[in-house]
Amino acid sequence: MLGAAGPAGAQDLAAEAAAVRDKALSDPTAWRIVESLTTEVGARPVGTAAMARARDWALAKLASLGFENVRAEPFTTKAWIRGEESAEVVAPAPQKLRILGLSGSAPTPKGGLTGEVALFPTYQAMLDQPAGALDGKIAVVTQAMTRTQDGSGYGAILAQRAHGATEAAKRGAIAYLVRSLSTMQTRAPHAGYADYAGIPAAALSPPDAEQLERLAALGKPVSLKLVMASTVDPAATAWNVVGEIRGRERPDELIVVGGHLDSWDPGTGATDDGAGVAITTAAARLATLHARPRRTIRVVLWGSEEQGGSGSAYAAAHAAEVGNVVLAGEADIGAERVWRVALPAAGRDHPAVKAFLAALAPFSVVVSPDPAVRGGADVDGLVQAGAPVVQVAQDASRYFDFHHSADDTLDKIDPKALAQATAVWASLLEVVANSDVDFRPRGASSP
Amino acid sequence: MLGAAGPAGAQDLAAEAAAVRDKALSDPTAWRIVESLTTEVGARPVGTAAMARARDWALAKLASLGFENVRAEPFTTKAWIRGEESAEVVAPAPQKLRILGLSGSAPTPKGGLTGEVALFPTYQAMLDQPAGALDGKIAVVTQAMTRTQDGSGYGAILAQRAHGATEAAKRGAIAYLVRSLSTMQTRAPHAGYADYAGIPAAALSPPDAEQLERLAALGKPVSLKLVMASTVDPAATAWNVVGEIRGRERPDELIVVGGHLDSWDPGTGATDDGAGVAITTAAARLATLHARPRRTIRVVLWGSEEQGGSGSAYAAAHAAEVGNVVLAGEADIGAERVWRVALPAAGRDHPAVKAFLAALAPFSVVVSPDPAVRGGADVDGLVQAGAPVVQVAQDASRYFDFHHSADDTLDKIDPKALAQATAVWASLLEVVANSDVDFRPRGASSP
Repeated sequence: MLGAAGPAGAQDLAAEAAAVRDKALSDPTAWRIVESLTTEVGARPVGTAAMARARDWALAKLASLGFENVRAEPFTTKAWIRGEESAEVVAPAPQKLRILGLSGSAPTPKGGLTGEVALFPTYQAMLDQPAGALDGKIAVVTQAMTRTQDGSGYGAILAQRAHGATEAAKRGAIAYLVRSLSTMQTRAPHAGYADYAGIPAAALSPPDAEQLERLAALGKPVSLKLVMASTVDPAATAWNVVGEIRGRERPDELIVVGGHLDSWDPGTGATDDGAGVAITTAAARLATLHARPRRTIRVVLWGSEEQGGSGSAYAAAHAAEVGNVVLAGEADIGAERVWRVALPAAGRDHPAVKAFLAALAPFSVVVSPDPAVRGGADVDGLVQAGAPVVQVAQDASRYFDFHHSADDTLDKIDPKALAQATAVWASLLEVVANSDVDFRPRGASSP
Repeated sequence: MLGAAGPAGAQDLAAEAAAVRDKALSDPTAWRIVESLTTEVGARPVGTAAMARARDWALAKLASLGFENVRAEPFTTKAWIRGEESAEVVAPAPQKLRILGLSGSAPTPKGGLTGEVALFPTYQAMLDQPAGALDGKIAVVTQAMTRTQDGSGYGAILAQRAHGATEAAKRGAIAYLVRSLSTMQTRAPHAGYADYAGIPAAALSPPDAEQLERLAALGKPVSLKLVMASTVDPAATAWNVVGEIRGRERPDELIVVGGHLDSWDPGTGATDDGAGVAITTAAARLATLHARPRRTIRVVLWGSEEQGGSGSAYAAAHAAEVGNVVLAGEADIGAERVWRVALPAAGRDHPAVKAFLAALAPFSVVVSPDPAVRGGADVDGLVQAGAPVVQVAQDASRYFDFHHSADDTLDKIDPKALAQATAVWASLLEVVANSDVDFRPRGASSP
């Protein structure tokens, strides 16, 4: 049914892609990987003992699944490590607030700091303030995030988390609080990366941000006390954990896929990115169980995506190989079903691509008319160096309910959705690893 | 349309009930009350400075709404006050857990305690253990609560929270952890009352309970460290805040309704029970705006429902009046729409009841064929002393998502649902306060 008409071999490829897809739909490997990682390691922020345990877990897991050349590739990166954190309204109505420090946060003085709130309902309203306008104030931005299927609601207001403290400090603020980039109305704040701005910086839960809006609307000055104690390791060791299924015919041609092993600390990193680790690892295994592939599939479990560094470290360590990378991709958008794929511009008419699209047909996945230009933070370095990239978009509608929060736990993963995403990746790996499809720009020839 | 055929006055009553209902549906009073309480006071556990602020807030609010005889009736009660709390898995996979101490909890020794987990998937499985079976263990019960419209899923397993520590201690346990009585899959544990058992006792969030189940299933001993520091005030002062709309013809005949002013500490007590405070206070005001009622409506904002004491204190202080109570009721089941009412057995055929039921008709409220036997913990004392009681059941399907947790905040309240509940109560107060309907057993005559 799914076999595409085409040159000799194309029907085989289509049949194999469909078989791999169907096997993946009922295979428990991906679920078991993410269950094991989130249970036996849990949260694994870079720079902590838990991250070292995650490395050991990954080495053992890849080896036990039959991957070859399993290794941890160390690199050095800056790590921000959370300490004690609390926030409370001092006046006009004393009460506790829920916060999570952002990675660019400075600690408060030992006993905390107290200041009056300058509240802005939009980030732009704060940016519109002149220098000195926030002198001595705690700047608060309460702009809410929009829920979207493609996750674009996040990027749309990411600046208020990533750069807000810097902009607040420029205008004189002594601390910065931002409504979490969250689509969930719970008291769990969402952590995340922020530039270092020299002042304490934290995310408020959405209800806490709204509470500050109501308190500010009472018309009296609102003052807060913050206590935050973080430390920074400027040269923490982290690891990209790598495993391969070596190709039988063209072992130097590499398909580089993976997820990131590190996570934020409040949850167990189930959807971000235990799911991506599980999906790509299981997909590589499923695509190669029936036969060793023609090309090499390399799974990389990147070691510092959340605070940055693992993608650039990988690209630097493997710069000489970039021309051999026939496809790169990262699964880092949760555990829900794939709803859209974007492929490189080249190779669209190759029978392997047709076989892949035929395998996708039962899932009603949208094939983007535009070429993929990004595949995840950890493959940006490869992409910039010229490697072709695939974007496998999973439904992100609920991803930012839990992302970077205490609620990113295993129970948020639907095993059937995880299996569908694994099936898509496995079909893709199957056809690319067992064909000569060339996604490289200008049809760069194989080495 | 809604006027019931009946004796002279019945049609007036029906028309008035409908008018009060319709006014309540678009009146902002209830919303403003709960917004004010949760914003300007916030969490208000008994025995804290916040509870004294809540008392002052209530006195001022009732006075500003035109209630008469506004007063705080003090009483003494035991208050458990939360201190520092943390829990972590020590082995086999170090990680933090989210807990909230229960009111019967003893503190741990200063540096915490460490013990091995004895995990039971049901409460009965723990009860089945003989004495000594839990010696030195941290007993953990992970039974999950069922979501129900009438809230009966809570009562069905309340014992595992209220009495579990006592039963665990009897069998030798050094601490007790229980899956929160929660219908929400978030990391916010749900606090609550428990008997004092002499050992530390806390609720786990549902994902944390499931994580312990998975860790236990690995087959190695699971050990935990708990640090809990609570204090107990054996004789805290609390207050029932009372306000009345005095009756013009039979002022000694009392309708006693209200909600409870105290709350658990992690949230702001919006649905439990800011909503009940708001609904009954606004309903009493709305039912009397057009004319002073024939009977007296007394609103009581009980001051220690969560840890017990306010209902019995009220009943004791007002024992001499019980025969004058023509109807008692408490709104303490959240902020959603009323879906069922249960009335006392007597008085069913009175035109006032028919007028009330006619006013309810557009809401498709189910009228229980059975008489109300309970109306809320704070009116139990009155009911036991013979006062007739009404049960106004609001939809509890989502109530236990947030109940007693950090997520019980204002944003969980739908203003339209709150207005519907207020409209039901207001219609009820209207017909009872302006008629001679007698719900009292054996038709006890008016004084």
